[in-house]
Amino acid sequence: MAKLNIQLLLTGDELMSGHVVETNSIMMADILKTQGLIFTCKVIVPDDLAQLVTEIERLSLAADILIINGGLGPTVDDKTAQALSLATKQSLAEHSQAMSHLQAWCLRRGFELNGPNKKQAMLPKGVELLHNATGSAPGFSITHNKCFILCIPGVPSEAKEMLLNSIMPLLKKHHNPGFTQVVRLQTFGLGESRLQEWIQTELSNWPNYIELGFRSAFPYVEVKLTAHDKKSAAELPQWQQKITNLLGAHIIGEGGARLPELLVNLLQEKKQKLTLAESCTGGLIAAKLTSVAGASMVFEGGVVSYSNEIKSKILGVQKTTLEKHGAVSEQVVIEMARGALELTQAQWSIAVSGIAGPDGGTKDKPVGTVWIAWGQATSMKAHKLYCPSNRKQFQEYVAFVALDLMRRAVMGIKETPYYIKS
Amino acid sequence: MAKLNIQLLLTGDELMSGHVVETNSIMMADILKTQGLIFTCKVIVPDDLAQLVTEIERLSLAADILIINGGLGPTVDDKTAQALSLATKQSLAEHSQAMSHLQAWCLRRGFELNGPNKKQAMLPKGVELLHNATGSAPGFSITHNKCFILCIPGVPSEAKEMLLNSIMPLLKKHHNPGFTQVVRLQTFGLGESRLQEWIQTELSNWPNYIELGFRSAFPYVEVKLTAHDKKSAAELPQWQQKITNLLGAHIIGEGGARLPELLVNLLQEKKQKLTLAESCTGGLIAAKLTSVAGASMVFEGGVVSYSNEIKSKILGVQKTTLEKHGAVSEQVVIEMARGALELTQAQWSIAVSGIAGPDGGTKDKPVGTVWIAWGQATSMKAHKLYCPSNRKQFQEYVAFVALDLMRRAVMGIKETPYYIKS
Repeated sequence: MAKLNIQLLLTGDELMSGHVVETNSIMMADILKTQGLIFTCKVIVPDDLAQLVTEIERLSLAADILIINGGLGPTVDDKTAQALSLATKQSLAEHSQAMSHLQAWCLRRGFELNGPNKKQAMLPKGVELLHNATGSAPGFSITHNKCFILCIPGVPSEAKEMLLNSIMPLLKKHHNPGFTQVVRLQTFGLGESRLQEWIQTELSNWPNYIELGFRSAFPYVEVKLTAHDKKSAAELPQWQQKITNLLGAHIIGEGGARLPELLVNLLQEKKQKLTLAESCTGGLIAAKLTSVAGASMVFEGGVVSYSNEIKSKILGVQKTTLEKHGAVSEQVVIEMARGALELTQAQWSIAVSGIAGPDGGTKDKPVGTVWIAWGQATSMKAHKLYCPSNRKQFQEYVAFVALDLMRRAVMGIKETPYYIKS
Repeated sequence: MAKLNIQLLLTGDELMSGHVVETNSIMMADILKTQGLIFTCKVIVPDDLAQLVTEIERLSLAADILIINGGLGPTVDDKTAQALSLATKQSLAEHSQAMSHLQAWCLRRGFELNGPNKKQAMLPKGVELLHNATGSAPGFSITHNKCFILCIPGVPSEAKEMLLNSIMPLLKKHHNPGFTQVVRLQTFGLGESRLQEWIQTELSNWPNYIELGFRSAFPYVEVKLTAHDKKSAAELPQWQQKITNLLGAHIIGEGGARLPELLVNLLQEKKQKLTLAESCTGGLIAAKLTSVAGASMVFEGGVVSYSNEIKSKILGVQKTTLEKHGAVSEQVVIEMARGALELTQAQWSIAVSGIAGPDGGTKDKPVGTVWIAWGQATSMKAHKLYCPSNRKQFQEYVAFVALDLMRRAVMGIKETPYYIKS
């Protein structure tokens, strides 16, 4: 069975003005996905009658299924029924079932059915009603240009309920869901283009029946392997293994793996703790760690040592070390990391000191320079990175690198990450 | 001058799949609005070459201006340049300016220009480059079917920068904006509906020629006054004054005022410093403060004291206080705030201790309970708040409340904020 071409028309002035983020289509895509369906196109227009008529005509010629979301309310700016009437050349008439639904809805709330509500029962002739269990606006469907058109209200809760309970059962009749199997690998530390180049070069015999996709969502890039039939799906594990061999510990996990959660879980499993001494990240590593529920089991606390005085006073960094090497140096981050260890019961420590900018750079240590120390008292490592970008990006990136280095250390991974090699 | 017909084509598989909420069009609509422009249609398609070509052709016939957002990345699933080449029948060729931009971009980061990156310089013949100051992907423009087509990357920060600095100046040439004068007041601590209700009740004679708008962007709500002619604009100051009288210090400033920046600037002006002792916010207040350039002038450091041991050991909270009152108590946050003052040269201190959840709540101190102490050694205040929500929202909200309380204290404001009164 050919894949259904299913398209979405969203209507509402508020969707054009910059006030409202449109989330209905995301909710709908999530529900459609459960049947292997995906929108092939989404069109968003204001409450403009002429535009609606044009788009209904055009999209009904292109799609097998057209969902129209919004414009079913009682007010004059709700124009979906009128537009559908013009597009299908079916005049508007009072729909008796719709009227009963509206009367029952008002009765339950102790309202009189008013003029604007009555308008909601004026529907193009020949439509079938779609039951709205939670709101006043009746939904409806009609076939036009061989396209099955379904109209549902814009109110998210009503749209969701109707999609799940009225529309999905109808779509099942139109559609025999195809087979897909997906493997999602979450990576950290390699850019999207670098990842693609590696895979293209090192796995040049990649089979065309396993779809390869990349999705960047800072600071992660997801590598997605999709098989569209059972035979291809049987080969997914071997290609997943090849990618895993190639990317090594740059793969932090499957699905929606996240560094703070991973690190907290790892430390919980080992019953170990971590402490932090942050300069240029100014508390951001701690904030990321403590955003995870249960962080208190692995993190007693840390120090944001922004000034040299605090580095000495709380963390015990030697004044001579600061004078001789400067705050952004291997020696200082190591003393910071060791100092933090002494304040707590933690086995592991991270320290960072760098120049977030925009000021404070020098020729030897330009803005974007950072020293990171990480490890245990007896096996402390330190490395310099250079990440020139704006202050916020620098802080975010350095915080995630620190978490990744610690994840690798706790897991006992020997491999050097690309961001340190390069 | 007729109103410009400006349309938007968004491309990206991730926009169809249900994972990603599309917010670029909202950001763009906000910027366009400053010139009295609004999208007449938005179309969202996956990274499908045939669909892109069809939509580019169709939309370029319908619109005066077409912005294409996304599909400019280095990977094979980025297809905007290729689609534009097919639609305009202009073959792809290496664009020398684009290549220079990419080389310079890689050089700054110490990378080699790789194959996928080079692809980003292959553009349809005849395009003009749009400078991308913050990312690798060059933008470009071309006129086709008398439509001015502008292609910009999907990365939100890059799209925003390019729209503001490259595209808006170009659009001004195409468009003579009508008169509008806008006052934007940034508020903190009052919900959108509360704000609206207060203004409706207390300023019931609000004139219909001054448009009143509200826009919520956590944790702020912007109140926007717009006049569409010069006569109305002359009355803006008096209505701004009335709103200011009504909302008091809930207005944190005009335009895009932000609490961390405001607080850093205030302390810089007074040549004073702040320190922090954070428990439940886990470094988030410090991270917000140090995200501001120049924070080092007003912040030497602070302590993330997640466990009781650290509260005692570093901040000097009495063990008896902890035993008697518990970590989430007035007495403990005051000792934490005082302890942090003693570690630094700071005049001001904030301490927070609360239950972020999901675990750790009790009947007396349910999840969402937090004590905040703020002030100077001789005038320390403390207050309990109850903010039941999820862990992340709780931490974010508490961090902003702490910054707002400190802003009010440094400014010497006596008025009690609504979130403490209520």
